[in-house]
Amino acid sequence: MPLAVEERLGGAADGFRLMWRELLPVGRLGSGGYARHAWTAADAECRDWFRRQAEARGLRYEVDRNGNQWAWWGDPAAGGAVLTGSHLDSVPGGGAFDGPLGVVAGFAALDVLRDRPDVLPDRGVAPGARPLAVVNFVEEEGARFGAACVGSRLTTGALGPEAARRLRDADGLTLADAMARAGRDPGLLGPDPERLARVGAFVELHIEQGRRLALTPSPVGVASGIWPHGRWRFDFHGEANHAGTTGLEERRDPMLSYANTVLAARKKARLAGALATFGRVEVEPGGTNAIASRVSGWLDSRAAEEGTLAEVVTEIERSARERGARDGVRVEVARESYTPVVEFDAALRDRLVATLRAASGVAPPVLPTGAGHDAGVLAAAVPTAMLFVRNPTGVSHSPHEHAEEDDCLAGVAALADVLAGLLADGPGGDAGPGGDGGPGGDGGPVGGVAGVPR
Amino acid sequence: MPLAVEERLGGAADGFRLMWRELLPVGRLGSGGYARHAWTAADAECRDWFRRQAEARGLRYEVDRNGNQWAWWGDPAAGGAVLTGSHLDSVPGGGAFDGPLGVVAGFAALDVLRDRPDVLPDRGVAPGARPLAVVNFVEEEGARFGAACVGSRLTTGALGPEAARRLRDADGLTLADAMARAGRDPGLLGPDPERLARVGAFVELHIEQGRRLALTPSPVGVASGIWPHGRWRFDFHGEANHAGTTGLEERRDPMLSYANTVLAARKKARLAGALATFGRVEVEPGGTNAIASRVSGWLDSRAAEEGTLAEVVTEIERSARERGARDGVRVEVARESYTPVVEFDAALRDRLVATLRAASGVAPPVLPTGAGHDAGVLAAAVPTAMLFVRNPTGVSHSPHEHAEEDDCLAGVAALADVLAGLLADGPGGDAGPGGDGGPGGDGGPVGGVAGVPR
Repeated sequence: MPLAVEERLGGAADGFRLMWRELLPVGRLGSGGYARHAWTAADAECRDWFRRQAEARGLRYEVDRNGNQWAWWGDPAAGGAVLTGSHLDSVPGGGAFDGPLGVVAGFAALDVLRDRPDVLPDRGVAPGARPLAVVNFVEEEGARFGAACVGSRLTTGALGPEAARRLRDADGLTLADAMARAGRDPGLLGPDPERLARVGAFVELHIEQGRRLALTPSPVGVASGIWPHGRWRFDFHGEANHAGTTGLEERRDPMLSYANTVLAARKKARLAGALATFGRVEVEPGGTNAIASRVSGWLDSRAAEEGTLAEVVTEIERSARERGARDGVRVEVARESYTPVVEFDAALRDRLVATLRAASGVAPPVLPTGAGHDAGVLAAAVPTAMLFVRNPTGVSHSPHEHAEEDDCLAGVAALADVLAGLLADGPGGDAGPGGDGGPGGDGGPVGGVAGVPR
Repeated sequence: MPLAVEERLGGAADGFRLMWRELLPVGRLGSGGYARHAWTAADAECRDWFRRQAEARGLRYEVDRNGNQWAWWGDPAAGGAVLTGSHLDSVPGGGAFDGPLGVVAGFAALDVLRDRPDVLPDRGVAPGARPLAVVNFVEEEGARFGAACVGSRLTTGALGPEAARRLRDADGLTLADAMARAGRDPGLLGPDPERLARVGAFVELHIEQGRRLALTPSPVGVASGIWPHGRWRFDFHGEANHAGTTGLEERRDPMLSYANTVLAARKKARLAGALATFGRVEVEPGGTNAIASRVSGWLDSRAAEEGTLAEVVTEIERSARERGARDGVRVEVARESYTPVVEFDAALRDRLVATLRAASGVAPPVLPTGAGHDAGVLAAAVPTAMLFVRNPTGVSHSPHEHAEEDDCLAGVAALADVLAGLLADGPGGDAGPGGDGGPGGDGGPVGGVAGVPR
């Protein structure tokens, strides 16, 4: 019978609680939500917290050329490192868990690995056996500069350094200037293949941003992949005019075209089993008594299949243009970002499933997600997997985002099991496909507290 | 046969052009529109321009307790003053004519009265006969502090000084602080009955903000009244959530309720022959990948009758609540401002009509307007009338707002005729009802260049 989670974690459970408490007030708004945006004062506080966690554990602390923070247990040069972590930034008014849970769980799992060799007898590996790193990727949410996963995409080369430096926040400040003000040299930005070459596998733990796990008895699940998703900017160009004197027939009111497009997007998404959201809108001039000259709305859309996504967006665009023509409104649509479907490394995913099944006696749910993650970016470069922690309401990107502490601790235990299994491959081991031929989905018991191949 | 406009105006035509050119660049944006908001640097430049115009003409220059600027020709204490003017502030990105045309035309008409006694033989009255004043009312548009006609409403007492001082701009700065920074004492704000008692009539000239005159051969029209109008804030409270992971059925998305309300408002207004506009919207948190927690939209609605207006707004509110219930969205509606119907002084209006008919041989169109004006505020305190100058496109509150120069000069000539007729009543005359019993609508030829009762 598996040990209770609290018992297995030992002091690491209290360590988790302490870290969580320390981080909780940073960047918290009156609403209870968070404003932890890249290279702001709140971000600096988060980063300082990360550095202190690394130093308190005697870990080797590094900031890479792109501003991502790394805490190493063992020698990075040994190669085949196992990487975990997530991000510490938030969307505007977001919750406490999206991002930070993965970083805090990363440090807590490291504590388990190092301090509880009795619980994880064969994978309480000494530093140096195979390095383990906890990472904090910078600007994952794209809340400040409009582009998501900036830190990880710079590192893999998916985002070019010139394009990154030119990104601007709402005040017109460039990412380059914001980094410089935060004491970082934006001239260093760029791909980091040497660093990636040292990583054998990446496992990101994250709060689930839906209710799939809430419908199961499992506090922890394994990701199958990430839905393709993108952002499209819809500009509706009409004609500014006086709201009190311009006859309805003489108007070219872009707010009407925008409103119709919002409703059309919902309908098209529903019919296709996809998601479509307008959550951001800008109006020029924005006066109460002025018909708008321009309304810009941002469409976020996602679907299980790339083909479905393309169809939905095409339909929404067609609807916008048709209504625009009726309103005398010119419509421009620009794709601002697009992320193809991500299928996580199958062998690594199956290995995680086997590990968790061995530890708990029950196979964890395997589920897709519609949310983008740094793991989705790194998947293009290294074998990558994700663990999800149950979210009872499914609410995310909101002050009401929540996971029960017991489920968070179950996540830490699961992450420790998984990391232990990977570290047990020894230095130079390769956790991914074509690696040591580790067991696949239906392989015997692997990882976990009990029944691990030695 | 009436003299050509240019000939009648003499040097005042060039004076008009010069004043217009001086004012044109002040507060102009790259878009060609204007940002002349109360108590900003651009506003200070406009106010400085006004002061210089007064001083260049040897007029008595005053700033009243509420910050309105006055330029007096003749002794204010003589009483029964004829007042003209308008405002110099703009909506965000507004046009050059809305407001400034009335102030510039006021100075130009004064020039005609003073310098062209040959053209206006009996009304080229010497200063002192009956005082004439040109006024610039502060913060007419409400662009900065959200409340319209602040200067005129404070003066009549329609807006209390405490409420005015507490008004805040988008940066949270109060009107009191903004005035103090501009060197004015906000402690002086308040009603100004003594000043109003010295005014016998107010005539505001304004660019038309619709296309009624454009459909006629007349460059100038007379206002019948101002439609009742109001502003309502609709708050749609939903639940913030992740746009990529929250199923459509699990959402409480206030953007949907807002969009539906925008379209419903258009429909209800169309059916009732009223106007309804959403030109301003705010979204919380406003992230591209976040379902909104709150959408606030401001409804501007107007109609010919107060009953119609009330019905239209009630219908829109009902529609919002019904859709909100469907979306799981709570709807709050608050009336932020309301202005009842204004019927301008009938005797004064008829007198203007007669004057213009006498001057041009054609009766000017008499038309209502949906726009609020300082004249609508002053109408509660003194006999008030408005002249409109033709707007070929009807566009207003936009960089494309325009009136032909010839039409503007025709407006100056008409204003001069009207002011001359009123000044001819002599000191202590009363231009309004119960005054000297001046001719009503069908009275004989009054005012104008020719055929004036002497």
